[in-house]
Amino acid sequence: MSLIDELTKKLEAKQDRLIEVRRYLHAHPELSFQEEQTAAYLKDFYKNVPVDSIETDFGGNRGVVVNIKGGKPGPRLALRADFDALPIQEETNLPFASQNKGVMHACGHDGHTAYMLILAETLAEMKDQLNGSVRIIHQPAEEMPPGGAKSMVEAGVLNDVDAVLGIHVMSAMETGKVYYRSGQTQTGRAKFSLKIQGKGGHGAMPHTANDAIVAASAFVMNVQTIVSRRIDPFDSAVVTIGSFDGKGQFNIIKDAVELEGDVRTLSSESRTQVEEEVRKITKGIEAMYGVEAQLDYVNDYPVLVNDEDVTLKVKEAIEQANIPEINAVLETGPIAPSEDFAYYLQEKPGTFIYVGAKPEGKEGFPHHHPKFEIDERSLLISAKAMAAAVASYLG
Amino acid sequence: MSLIDELTKKLEAKQDRLIEVRRYLHAHPELSFQEEQTAAYLKDFYKNVPVDSIETDFGGNRGVVVNIKGGKPGPRLALRADFDALPIQEETNLPFASQNKGVMHACGHDGHTAYMLILAETLAEMKDQLNGSVRIIHQPAEEMPPGGAKSMVEAGVLNDVDAVLGIHVMSAMETGKVYYRSGQTQTGRAKFSLKIQGKGGHGAMPHTANDAIVAASAFVMNVQTIVSRRIDPFDSAVVTIGSFDGKGQFNIIKDAVELEGDVRTLSSESRTQVEEEVRKITKGIEAMYGVEAQLDYVNDYPVLVNDEDVTLKVKEAIEQANIPEINAVLETGPIAPSEDFAYYLQEKPGTFIYVGAKPEGKEGFPHHHPKFEIDERSLLISAKAMAAAVASYLG
Amino acid sequence: MSLIDELTKKLEAKQDRLIEVRRYLHAHPELSFQEEQTAAYLKDFYKNVPVDSIETDFGGNRGVVVNIKGGKPGPRLALRADFDALPIQEETNLPFASQNKGVMHACGHDGHTAYMLILAETLAEMKDQLNGSVRIIHQPAEEMPPGGAKSMVEAGVLNDVDAVLGIHVMSAMETGKVYYRSGQTQTGRAKFSLKIQGKGGHGAMPHTANDAIVAASAFVMNVQTIVSRRIDPFDSAVVTIGSFDGKGQFNIIKDAVELEGDVRTLSSESRTQVEEEVRKITKGIEAMYGVEAQLDYVNDYPVLVNDEDVTLKVKEAIEQANIPEINAVLETGPIAPSEDFAYYLQEKPGTFIYVGAKPEGKEGFPHHHPKFEIDERSLLISAKAMAAAVASYLG
Amino acid sequence: MSLIDELTKKLEAKQDRLIEVRRYLHAHPELSFQEEQTAAYLKDFYKNVPVDSIETDFGGNRGVVVNIKGGKPGPRLALRADFDALPIQEETNLPFASQNKGVMHACGHDGHTAYMLILAETLAEMKDQLNGSVRIIHQPAEEMPPGGAKSMVEAGVLNDVDAVLGIHVMSAMETGKVYYRSGQTQTGRAKFSLKIQGKGGHGAMPHTANDAIVAASAFVMNVQTIVSRRIDPFDSAVVTIGSFDGKGQFNIIKDAVELEGDVRTLSSESRTQVEEEVRKITKGIEAMYGVEAQLDYVNDYPVLVNDEDVTLKVKEAIEQANIPEINAVLETGPIAPSEDFAYYLQEKPGTFIYVGAKPEGKEGFPHHHPKFEIDERSLLISAKAMAAAVASYLG
Repeated sequence: MSLIDELTKKLEAKQDRLIEVRRYLHAHPELSFQEEQTAAYLKDFYKNVPVDSIETDFGGNRGVVVNIKGGKPGPRLALRADFDALPIQEETNLPFASQNKGVMHACGHDGHTAYMLILAETLAEMKDQLNGSVRIIHQPAEEMPPGGAKSMVEAGVLNDVDAVLGIHVMSAMETGKVYYRSGQTQTGRAKFSLKIQGKGGHGAMPHTANDAIVAASAFVMNVQTIVSRRIDPFDSAVVTIGSFDGKGQFNIIKDAVELEGDVRTLSSESRTQVEEEVRKITKGIEAMYGVEAQLDYVNDYPVLVNDEDVTLKVKEAIEQANIPEINAVLETGPIAPSEDFAYYLQEKPGTFIYVGAKPEGKEGFPHHHPKFEIDERSLLISAKAMAAAVASYLG
Repeated sequence: MSLIDELTKKLEAKQDRLIEVRRYLHAHPELSFQEEQTAAYLKDFYKNVPVDSIETDFGGNRGVVVNIKGGKPGPRLALRADFDALPIQEETNLPFASQNKGVMHACGHDGHTAYMLILAETLAEMKDQLNGSVRIIHQPAEEMPPGGAKSMVEAGVLNDVDAVLGIHVMSAMETGKVYYRSGQTQTGRAKFSLKIQGKGGHGAMPHTANDAIVAASAFVMNVQTIVSRRIDPFDSAVVTIGSFDGKGQFNIIKDAVELEGDVRTLSSESRTQVEEEVRKITKGIEAMYGVEAQLDYVNDYPVLVNDEDVTLKVKEAIEQANIPEINAVLETGPIAPSEDFAYYLQEKPGTFIYVGAKPEGKEGFPHHHPKFEIDERSLLISAKAMAAAVASYLG
Repeated sequence: MSLIDELTKKLEAKQDRLIEVRRYLHAHPELSFQEEQTAAYLKDFYKNVPVDSIETDFGGNRGVVVNIKGGKPGPRLALRADFDALPIQEETNLPFASQNKGVMHACGHDGHTAYMLILAETLAEMKDQLNGSVRIIHQPAEEMPPGGAKSMVEAGVLNDVDAVLGIHVMSAMETGKVYYRSGQTQTGRAKFSLKIQGKGGHGAMPHTANDAIVAASAFVMNVQTIVSRRIDPFDSAVVTIGSFDGKGQFNIIKDAVELEGDVRTLSSESRTQVEEEVRKITKGIEAMYGVEAQLDYVNDYPVLVNDEDVTLKVKEAIEQANIPEINAVLETGPIAPSEDFAYYLQEKPGTFIYVGAKPEGKEGFPHHHPKFEIDERSLLISAKAMAAAVASYLG
Repeated sequence: MSLIDELTKKLEAKQDRLIEVRRYLHAHPELSFQEEQTAAYLKDFYKNVPVDSIETDFGGNRGVVVNIKGGKPGPRLALRADFDALPIQEETNLPFASQNKGVMHACGHDGHTAYMLILAETLAEMKDQLNGSVRIIHQPAEEMPPGGAKSMVEAGVLNDVDAVLGIHVMSAMETGKVYYRSGQTQTGRAKFSLKIQGKGGHGAMPHTANDAIVAASAFVMNVQTIVSRRIDPFDSAVVTIGSFDGKGQFNIIKDAVELEGDVRTLSSESRTQVEEEVRKITKGIEAMYGVEAQLDYVNDYPVLVNDEDVTLKVKEAIEQANIPEINAVLETGPIAPSEDFAYYLQEKPGTFIYVGAKPEGKEGFPHHHPKFEIDERSLLISAKAMAAAVASYLG
């Protein structure tokens, strides 16, 4: 029996435990950078699993890294699953709904962790048959910049790794379908705040004041030209001013305004360019209006760029594994949200794939919604798909 | 002895009472439309004064109107003094400072009322010598639109009146100087609020939303063209957006924004034109951006336009009265704040003059400031200047 | 010998004639909608070719349509080549440079026509071996909207056709490489002019005029929000105002301005949306500024959308034909210029592929440049690639 | 007989010659800085007039300065009349219409010069009766900056002068009325050109270009805030962009745009402020858009500020002279056009007054109109009014 066939057979046998683990995690969500209980649970899980080593508090946060060394030498894979939850009050009425008030696994990280634990256990049990090694990266804090990935990468989690793989379950994609994409896949993100300081004054005497609302409105209008004129039309960028805090008295010229903005880009070129243009427009507003403009611009998650070769290999591995629960392996277009898996892909070739998890016969609430749910069949699919990828490298 | 000489002699003799009355009023300020005690005080003051009639609650508010009929027929003058105070906590440390927490006579209306009472009493005592009649208008609620003047005019306070006169003491003008101006003198005022309703959405997906911050910023920028391109450069208009209430999350496209604006104009042409243009730009923003824009535009106090003949007559009367406390009678430029005396001037010819009241050797805090003070010598000056005007008509 | 092998062998043998035909056409370019001599040349070419029928002046212009019926029934393919030139004075110094002053084949349509003639002749000679039929579409006027394709399609040139194929040689792509793309591939295009009529006046008296330059500038600024806020960031659109005709006297307020704009989109959604938004902003400018705005908005070439199945089939056919001159068959990103081949693809499934034609060891001047050149090896490559596609359908 | 009575009597007697001189000048107009024949005519006129001295080519241009010394010492007055014409093709059909094609006295300078010659002759004839002296300034080139006044002042034309007076006939003011104004009376003027250099490019590829039309439109919109937010609402300023030279191809991003602007101000404060703000906005556009912006900003004629005392004295002199042709002496509001008489007033106290010249029973075409006409009665009025002013100083 081939490696993949054996793996999928064993995974199938563990499906009930897989669901059980996921439900336990779902009921006990923890916020980013505060995942104490979850990290302890992970450590505990591996107590009787024949892994080669386990490291905790990896990268200064609650990262758990597990090494599984195969019987023979070969490629060294890293598999990543994130385990933090969100500050959302769950409204699903599921029997295993969150027991932590105001905290919810509303993005599927419980599922990621559950399938990864079961897969890791299985791989450890079969490690003699592996040609190469697997490093399991249980990562905290994906939801909150700066994110957990960055410090784990900096702490060397990808040293001696040849390729890194990850999965996200997707409530808007049909269960049974798996999606892949080469190249630029999820947007990079930046956030900025801009405080424009003018000078207040009587509404009837504008010449004695310096109107911050006019200067800030000019900023907003000129910012529109970044996307319309500076970005390659076949690339992608978004600059949203989500907050214009200029509440005041109708008859008093506003002294200061604070803007907050959100930036999404799909290439390192546009990421760099948008920042440069926001800085230029800020300087321009200062020069034009004589206001003081304090810009705080922070790039966080980079553009997620899947490696072409790895993506192709993984796609074909999944297709050829003949997994009955998977009825199609499809290319996806780019995906708007940002994801700190991008940091791993800056370091090593790899790919991030998407597993359909839309609940059957139900409305698929979006991620981060209080009624967010996944079809639990997506967990075995995830485990098998990732197993197929592993087998194609280490088989 | 001439009428004016006799009047000024009598007024001088009452200077101590004048100060006393003013200090009493200063210590007992009341907010616009709530001047119950002050109105009672006025009624009480006139109990033993030989006026011909007194009407209270005039115009639906707390207006007090007093008629003094002269010995012979002649011109019929109306003299107006306002008596409301402001929602300001006094910080002057004066011995007669406000006893009402958070309320203060910070605009000099206490002084207006005090000099007018003493002048009215004096005129009543000498009424046999007057050729014509005087109507004293004690007006409430100048500080708060719609103001007290409007309803008093509508209730007929200027019926059978030939001319109407008023005075404002001014903390920024030197004590001893009196100012006049023909024609457009104080600005008309309008206020507006504009609610722009777009559609919220994820910061990374602008095409699914309708960004209210962008639409509102476009409104602000286009509004600048009203003053720059629509108004006669030798006329005057101001449009201030004092409030841009668009606080939100940096990464969520703002669904709605509320703006508030202040308009000042110095002619009925520009008053009409600014409103028309604000309405047009509002329609334009709706058409352009597909937002719903709800504009609430309210004209309140009109432009204050002094009659040329009355102004000249009053100016000359004051000059020729040889009042030793007055060292100059000067023309003033236009004055930015608005004033509901303008309503009287829409109905009858008249003039509003300005009496310097800058405290000697002190900083002159602006009107509406918690440390606002007047030089009390300005009160006798006001009484004498108004007496001179009365004498020139009824002497 | 397989059909494709025989075809490529025959084509190779005709390479000299292919070059000769191309050079003749290159020396005798004609402008769009004026291709009289070229159409006559085509008709003449087919005189001794065993095609089944030939139609001229197809679609009201100078289109030439040739039918080749195979020996057995089968798929019905249409192959299109365009044959018009551009109003450019050639500066290549080639021995076969344009003999028509101010007219030049600066886009490679001479090459398209040459390879197609030789291929058509070859297919006609071998028609007994074909299972199905081929219709050769020689199309005029690709360079000038409304283009030649539209009326040919309307006149039924694709009736009874199963798929339609075309090629463009590309001076910026390396010779030896062939590019394909599924789905949205070349932009749709619209053009607009906007005349803004205000009212002139003396520069010192803006209130008596209606400044068309300000209204037009406001239009330009607000138009930026179409791309920045209305279009899906993963779609693509460009709105360029290429002309702002507002020259006047510095001290006279401009009465009228004329703008001209260019629109590119990569989906029918954005094509529709941009037009709608330009119309809305025009209405908005009228409402705001009281100007009269006359918008003339014309969509011309649609988005070019290649059929996924046809593209894949053609790509694989070329790969499997083992054409030694082709060293790679690659996916291309979207391509900015518009192309009236898009009209055929609105009617029938098909694909448009790109054949590298960068001159060896030379700078590749861009299309429409007076020094534009192609590597003539690209012509045999085009013929063989298209032959491979034909063989895969009719073999 | 008083001086003024004798002057007016003599002037009346010369009315026919006055008209004759004016018509001759009207028929022979010359452009600014090219007034050769007119200057010769002036010199010739004075040949037999008993003036004390005459200087020609004064100030480097064609200025003619004439000194008349009175019999006794006293104030030293300067009277100025300008004598250039405009590049306009006359369309009046007057019998004495311009004989110089494309050149026309369409602003009344012919009248100014005619009345001044007759007045100067009369004063010279009566010089023994004058207590003081009169300098007649015949100034060229008022219509074209830098104007003739500046260099004449720099060359000392006002040395030893106590006051300087001038008159302008006005086709929009009723004949028989004379207007005066103290203080800021005619606007100061500046002119600017702004070349914005971006980078051209294909309309579908904005990211490879730098769109000068967008940058220039942003400049236009931001410039609106100068008047709306920077200038005291009771002061006056106008900034007009009269030319936006950005004509190009609809589908090519414009590389460069040239703007031209006109600035009017009514105080030295606003004159300085507008320049400063235009420079700031220029810098801001450069910073924002990365374009190169070359600003050429030239202040030319200053604000014309009449001296209060001189104005009052002249006004009263005219009123008291009992000139029957003058039915009112009125205050005027500020006047929009600029006038280089302002340079004299920067140097010495003086006043510039306005003489109604609206043709009776005819439409009063505006100054600089091809059908511009004046009522010739305004010439004797001008002479008498100026005589009254002279007599009040030197009588």
